[in-house]
Amino acid sequence: MKFFEITHKDKNSRARTGLIQTDHGVIETPDFMPVGTQATVKTLDKEDLNTIGAQIILANTYHLHLRPTEDLIAKFGGLHKFMNWDKPILTDSGGFQVFSLGLQKEAKDVTSNEKLVSIDDDGVTFKSHLDGSTHRFTPEEAVRIQHKIGADIIMAFDECTPDDADNAYTKKAMQRTHEWAERCISEHKKNTEYHDYKQFLFGIIQGANHEDLRKESAQIISSLDFDGIAIGGESIGYNMEATKNILDWVGDIIPEDKPHYTMGVGFNPSDLFEVVERGVDMFDCVAPTRVARNGRLFVHKEINPKMYINIKNSEFKTDDQPIDAKCGCFTCQNHTRAYLHHLFKADEILGLRLASIHNLYFFLELMRQIREAIKEDRFLELKKSILG
Amino acid sequence: MKFFEITHKDKNSRARTGLIQTDHGVIETPDFMPVGTQATVKTLDKEDLNTIGAQIILANTYHLHLRPTEDLIAKFGGLHKFMNWDKPILTDSGGFQVFSLGLQKEAKDVTSNEKLVSIDDDGVTFKSHLDGSTHRFTPEEAVRIQHKIGADIIMAFDECTPDDADNAYTKKAMQRTHEWAERCISEHKKNTEYHDYKQFLFGIIQGANHEDLRKESAQIISSLDFDGIAIGGESIGYNMEATKNILDWVGDIIPEDKPHYTMGVGFNPSDLFEVVERGVDMFDCVAPTRVARNGRLFVHKEINPKMYINIKNSEFKTDDQPIDAKCGCFTCQNHTRAYLHHLFKADEILGLRLASIHNLYFFLELMRQIREAIKEDRFLELKKSILG
Repeated sequence: MKFFEITHKDKNSRARTGLIQTDHGVIETPDFMPVGTQATVKTLDKEDLNTIGAQIILANTYHLHLRPTEDLIAKFGGLHKFMNWDKPILTDSGGFQVFSLGLQKEAKDVTSNEKLVSIDDDGVTFKSHLDGSTHRFTPEEAVRIQHKIGADIIMAFDECTPDDADNAYTKKAMQRTHEWAERCISEHKKNTEYHDYKQFLFGIIQGANHEDLRKESAQIISSLDFDGIAIGGESIGYNMEATKNILDWVGDIIPEDKPHYTMGVGFNPSDLFEVVERGVDMFDCVAPTRVARNGRLFVHKEINPKMYINIKNSEFKTDDQPIDAKCGCFTCQNHTRAYLHHLFKADEILGLRLASIHNLYFFLELMRQIREAIKEDRFLELKKSILG
Repeated sequence: MKFFEITHKDKNSRARTGLIQTDHGVIETPDFMPVGTQATVKTLDKEDLNTIGAQIILANTYHLHLRPTEDLIAKFGGLHKFMNWDKPILTDSGGFQVFSLGLQKEAKDVTSNEKLVSIDDDGVTFKSHLDGSTHRFTPEEAVRIQHKIGADIIMAFDECTPDDADNAYTKKAMQRTHEWAERCISEHKKNTEYHDYKQFLFGIIQGANHEDLRKESAQIISSLDFDGIAIGGESIGYNMEATKNILDWVGDIIPEDKPHYTMGVGFNPSDLFEVVERGVDMFDCVAPTRVARNGRLFVHKEINPKMYINIKNSEFKTDDQPIDAKCGCFTCQNHTRAYLHHLFKADEILGLRLASIHNLYFFLELMRQIREAIKEDRFLELKKSILG
């Protein structure tokens, strides 16, 4: 059975449906992947994830390496067993988090003058944001850690450059990412996996917002023996105009027969349509659950043209309607906006979970509709009917 | 159909099983009632409550009066509909919270010199802990608020005195509580209920830790036309030696054919047995969910003689066992101590919910066993086998 199979191509766009086959089950694509950074999709349990229709979830190599550590997870038979989630999992390589540590100065217990991240051609040395302890990721180590964690799909270790880096630095970092990509493949091919199921390795295209570099990176990453091709970088998902440009630049270069993955896409419902239209099969973003915990809840455009409401607004205090009457999620089937408003105003934890269930269901239901529409060559019609 | 019916009396103690009939369903007694202060049992949804076997939950008149207000709840058809819980609900009268405000100085947005609570013979004026606004509860107002909120069982408004108050003050407050009890009954009999189902009114025995006052209070409250008899006070539940003494003093005075309710009992598994043994039918406590959120999880004595573990302790970091292998809750059926330890260390909200599910299930499962044991006249045997 092939790892990836295209089942239908939309006649009017690059959108396509497909199947990704892993030893933990099949993923119908395109699909949005909920993020479970620390081995939990925040506030949700495994039954919640099944109920909302999650086919695959993400976890984070950087966070899991620091806590509870890959060795502990391996001792439990891998992340599926550790967190008791028996469907597919993808781990990112930690590259994005390691580099964003240096940018975001989010670390605790580290004096602000200390350099948090130091990059050389062999790898990256960084300090834990938890306790300031020193760690080092090389491409080989990032693959070994991911082998221990045991996700079905693992990611090459890359250098994620800031968008404001100049062309010369971005090029240097990109070339390093390409060298690291080859080293990740070599390490992966040693078959040192700790688990009795297959793990698949994806490469990551970098090059920030430079057309020449993105095209060069797409060519090189596409030429290597990866199971799937990801597009990474600070802009992806965060800046959708840049994301669309980048996808348009690389769309003809990356091989059609491998899954395409945009890392960090899914801030807004419209984003899902933009990347699917450009042939993307997989994407993930922390935003649906993060904004849910701040009270921002997705709705159809008939309710609000921005496609969200903020449940904390006083207008919802006496509102006896569900968040979105069209939505089939547990929250909308059981609770009013007024009750959710009350839970948020009263700082009740249940509100965070009900909001997270809604936002993820909203996205995954859109993905179900998108897949159906592609199969019937009416993806652009659906896009228009949902986004207006 | 009678409101309360005793179905079996244990041959070897005062323990008894019974049925409480409300328009929202039947409650098998004795039972522990989970507390949902702000119209939510913290971290749990209605399906969780059904799964753990909650027959009735509590809510708090003081908190709901301040937010979202009884008028809003009434507009939604009552608390059952507002929070979408269709089984029985009990509201306390707010007396305990109003008076503990004055004791605990927990209020925010109120300067520390301001007097938070002022009591007179007609009622109590107090400042909101949320915004410092002034409110007044009289017995009539407390009943009217509870009529609007719409719980199946409502409580008389009482003055809850601190245990260190002298006999003279405690007596004065107790007499006020008795006068207020009659006023609550008068107000309740006006049948101004806002809902199309019956609400039942319980009286509260006060008298702190003074035997003479407790007996006097038990006689007077028992002589009034209440549907059930509660035993209130600072010690109840919090100080189990005092609680047992008080129950022994009043046990022969309060009528057998009304439900007996100790307000605030259920810090530890042993407490359930102590009050049931003394003929109590209902009790509630915030402790099982509050301590759960701090990582304290109930276990059988074979695991730890204290009957709890603290999941944050490092000994559980690599522990692949469930919290308690004898427990049938969702958490124990699905997750290891190591995973829970990880969730707590990583400040993940899912940990709080999994812990709350476990502690409440543990209590409610004990209550099921207690009811079965009473019916077979082996309550004391069960007590010995569980507590050792």
